[in-house]
Amino acid sequence: MTEKVVIIGGGAAGPKTAAKLRRENAEIKIDLYTQEDIISYSACGLPYFIGNIIQDYTTLILRTPEDFKKQNINIHIKSKCIKVNTEEQTVLIEDLISNNRYEVNYDILVIATGAIPIIPEIKNIGLKNVFTLRTIKDGIKIKEKMLQSKQAVLIGGGYISIELLEAFVQNNLKVTLLEKNNQILNMFDEDFAQRITDYIIGKNPGQVSILTGEEAVEFKGNENGEVISVVTSTGKEIETDFVILGTGVRPNTDFLLDSGIKLGIKNSIKVGNTLKTSINNIYATGDCTDNFNLVTNKYTWVPMGSTANKEGRCAAINIAGGNCHFDGILNSTITKYFDYTISIIGISYKEAIEYGFQPEFAIVTKRDKAGYMPNSGMMTLKLIADKNTHTILGIQGIGEGDVNKRINTVIPAILSKTRLETFMNLDLPYSPPYSPAIDPVLNAAQIIYQKINS
Amino acid sequence: MTEKVVIIGGGAAGPKTAAKLRRENAEIKIDLYTQEDIISYSACGLPYFIGNIIQDYTTLILRTPEDFKKQNINIHIKSKCIKVNTEEQTVLIEDLISNNRYEVNYDILVIATGAIPIIPEIKNIGLKNVFTLRTIKDGIKIKEKMLQSKQAVLIGGGYISIELLEAFVQNNLKVTLLEKNNQILNMFDEDFAQRITDYIIGKNPGQVSILTGEEAVEFKGNENGEVISVVTSTGKEIETDFVILGTGVRPNTDFLLDSGIKLGIKNSIKVGNTLKTSINNIYATGDCTDNFNLVTNKYTWVPMGSTANKEGRCAAINIAGGNCHFDGILNSTITKYFDYTISIIGISYKEAIEYGFQPEFAIVTKRDKAGYMPNSGMMTLKLIADKNTHTILGIQGIGEGDVNKRINTVIPAILSKTRLETFMNLDLPYSPPYSPAIDPVLNAAQIIYQKINS
Repeated sequence: MTEKVVIIGGGAAGPKTAAKLRRENAEIKIDLYTQEDIISYSACGLPYFIGNIIQDYTTLILRTPEDFKKQNINIHIKSKCIKVNTEEQTVLIEDLISNNRYEVNYDILVIATGAIPIIPEIKNIGLKNVFTLRTIKDGIKIKEKMLQSKQAVLIGGGYISIELLEAFVQNNLKVTLLEKNNQILNMFDEDFAQRITDYIIGKNPGQVSILTGEEAVEFKGNENGEVISVVTSTGKEIETDFVILGTGVRPNTDFLLDSGIKLGIKNSIKVGNTLKTSINNIYATGDCTDNFNLVTNKYTWVPMGSTANKEGRCAAINIAGGNCHFDGILNSTITKYFDYTISIIGISYKEAIEYGFQPEFAIVTKRDKAGYMPNSGMMTLKLIADKNTHTILGIQGIGEGDVNKRINTVIPAILSKTRLETFMNLDLPYSPPYSPAIDPVLNAAQIIYQKINS
Repeated sequence: MTEKVVIIGGGAAGPKTAAKLRRENAEIKIDLYTQEDIISYSACGLPYFIGNIIQDYTTLILRTPEDFKKQNINIHIKSKCIKVNTEEQTVLIEDLISNNRYEVNYDILVIATGAIPIIPEIKNIGLKNVFTLRTIKDGIKIKEKMLQSKQAVLIGGGYISIELLEAFVQNNLKVTLLEKNNQILNMFDEDFAQRITDYIIGKNPGQVSILTGEEAVEFKGNENGEVISVVTSTGKEIETDFVILGTGVRPNTDFLLDSGIKLGIKNSIKVGNTLKTSINNIYATGDCTDNFNLVTNKYTWVPMGSTANKEGRCAAINIAGGNCHFDGILNSTITKYFDYTISIIGISYKEAIEYGFQPEFAIVTKRDKAGYMPNSGMMTLKLIADKNTHTILGIQGIGEGDVNKRINTVIPAILSKTRLETFMNLDLPYSPPYSPAIDPVLNAAQIIYQKINS
C-alpha cells in the first residue's frame, strides 16, 4: 500500500499534484521538495508583473507553504533533489541553506522539476544585468532593473520575448530583439511571422527594432562588470542597459541522467498517458515530461503551464488509485502583444510538409463581428488541412479581433479529425455582436474545401 | 439542363443562394422575387439599429438590387409569391403595386420565404403602436416611436425581447416584459433563466420589470386608437406608450399548403441535407425550412440567420451541380444584455430528460482569465453530459466574462460525440490574459466526469 508520496518540484505541476492527491486521499503522506523559496506560482504571469500590469508578485502565488500545511502537505523549500535511487526508493536532497545532504525514502515519487533556461554561448555572458526569466526571483530582478532603464536587448524571438517586449515598451524603453533564425516565432509559418513582425514594428515606430538572421556574439561591459552593449554577428554594436536571454528552455533533468529513468526527446522524462515513467512507482508531471503530439502522432516537448496543471491533476488521480489518461497535446499556444493576439494550434504548413501530409491552406482576413457593429476587430486566420483525409491539421491566428474564440473552435475538431465538409457547416451561435453570420473560421474551411475539390 | 432558377424570398437565405449560385455558374438565369422593397439585409441587426448602436439602417443592407443587377441577377421587389404549381413548374406572383398577377416558369425553384410573427389572441390587438419586429420597415417604425416614448411593454421573453429590452433601457425607457411561461428564455433550464432574470433586474433597478406566468389579455387605447395600457391575466393594468409582440414566429409557408411540397414540424418545409424539398427540382433555404437536430436526432425548427446563410450557400452549390451537405444544427444561439452574454448550445438538462438521455451536469462560476489579471470577468457555465455515453449534450453560458469562447470550444465536441474523459484534457492554448491554466469549460467536464464515476 502506498503510504508516502514524495514530490520533487514546486512550480505548477508539483503543487497541483500534491493538492489534487490530498483531495483524492486524506490519509496518504505527502512531502514536496523544491529548491526555490516560493512555491505554487504562475510563471506565465511574470511578464505581466514585470510590465506592471500586476503590481504585486504575491498575487501570482496560488498557495503558500502554510496553505499546504493546512492540507497536511509538508513543503520543504530551498531543498534541491541531487539524485534519485530507484532501487532503494530514495532521493538525495540538499538543504540549500546548510548544504547538508540527506536521503528521503518514498513509496511513490513524482518528478516535477520543470525546465531551465538554455544559456547560449556568447562572449562575456557572465556580465551583470544579463537575465533569464523563469522564477519569481528572476522577475523581481528584471522589473527592478527595467524601472531604472532606458533601453534593453532581448535575445531570442519566442513568446517570452514578445511578452517582455510588450512590458518594456509599455514602460517606455527602447528595445532591440535579436533572433538568429530568419523569422521570429519559429513555430509559425514565415508569412505569419512576417505579419506579426510588421505589426510590432508598426505599433511603436522607432521604439522597437527586430533583427532576424542575426545573433549576439559578444557582450561588452563597463568597469563595474555591467553589460553596456551587445555585438551581433553582422558586427553591429547595440547599446543597452540590460539583456534578456530568451533563448529557450530545456527539461530540468540532468540529475536523472544515471537514474535509470528513461528520458526522451531533449532529455525530457518519457511518460505514458498515465504520467508514469519507465519505473513503476515513479511519475513525472509538467515541463520536465515529454508530450505526445496528437496531430503528428510523434513525441515532442512543449512545456506549457496548462499541460503541467492537467498532468499534475491526472497523475494525482492515478496515484490515488483512479484512472486518468492524458493522451497528448496539440502544441496549442497563445500570447498577445498589447491588443494583438498571436496563436497557433496543431502544426504549421511547413511542418505539415515535413511530416509528410499533403497540406492545403486558406488565409482569411475578416472582422470578428457583423461588419455594421461598432468595435469590431480585424483578424487573420490561416487554416491548414490535409488533402487526403480532409482533416484539419492546424490553425494560426493573429489580430486585434477575437482570434482566441476561432482558435478554440477548431481545437476539438483537430482532435476528433472532423472532416472539412462537416466543420464548414458547424452550427456556431450567431448574433451580430459576436460574429458575422458565417464565422470567418468556417469561411476558411469552405475555402480549403473548394481548393481541394477544384 | 437547368436554365432558369427562380428564388422566392429576399431576406438572408434567398439573396445568399442567388449570389453563391452566380459565383458557381456564370450562365444560369436567376430571378429573385420578394414582397419587400429592401432585400439582402441582416434582420438580426435590427435591435442594434433600434437601440441606436447603429445609426443608419442602410448599413444592415449587404447588397442592393443594383449590386445584384451587376451580377446579372434579376431582383423583383414588391412581388409576392401567391402559389406554386409544381406540375406546370410555375409560380404565381402578385405585383404589390399594381395588384396584377402573373405566372413565372422555372427549371429550379428555391423557396426562401422565411418566417413571420405569430400574433397572439389579445383583445384590441389592432390598436396603433402595437408592433412586431421582422423587417427593416418594422425596425424604422419601432425606433421612431421609441425615441418619442417613456415606457414600453414587451410581450414574450425570447431573445428578441431581451435585445429590444437592452435597446429601450439604453434609451432611458421604463420597460415591462410579460412572459406567460414561468420563466423567460424557455430553451434554458429554469435555474439559468432565473439567473438571467436576476441580472437584468439588478442591472437597472426600478427601470425594468419582468413578469413571468402572466400574459397580456387586453390592450386599452385612447381616442386616436393608440395603445395606452396592457391588462394582464392577473388583472394588472400597465401603462405604456407602445407594445412589442415578441411572441414568436412561424414558417412563412401558408401559400404552399396545397402545393404538394411536403411540410414538416410547425409547417416548415421538409428538406433533406441537400436542401432539396420533396419535389425534385425545388429547394428551400433559410427560416422556412425544417432543421435536423444532431444531438436528439429529431427534426426541429430553429430559424437562425447563420443557418439561413449556410443553407443558401449549400443549396446554390448543389443547384450548380456540386455536392454540399448541410447535415443539421445544434440549436446554437447567443445574445447579450449589455455586457452580459447569454448562450445555449445543444439541449438543456430538462430537454435531456425529455429526450430520454441520462443527463448529469456541472455548474462552474469562474473568472475568464487568470485570477491575477486585471479586467477579468465572471461567467457561469452549465455543462450537460450523458451518463451512459459520456458525451456532451449541451452547454448554457452566461456572464460578463468571455462566455462565447467557452461555448464555441464545446460545439465541435458535441458534434463529434467526444467523450468527457477526452474533452476534459483538451489542449486549449493558455496564457494569463486569455484563461486560467485549466479553462473553466474543462473544469466543468472534470466535475461531471467525477460525478459520473463516483
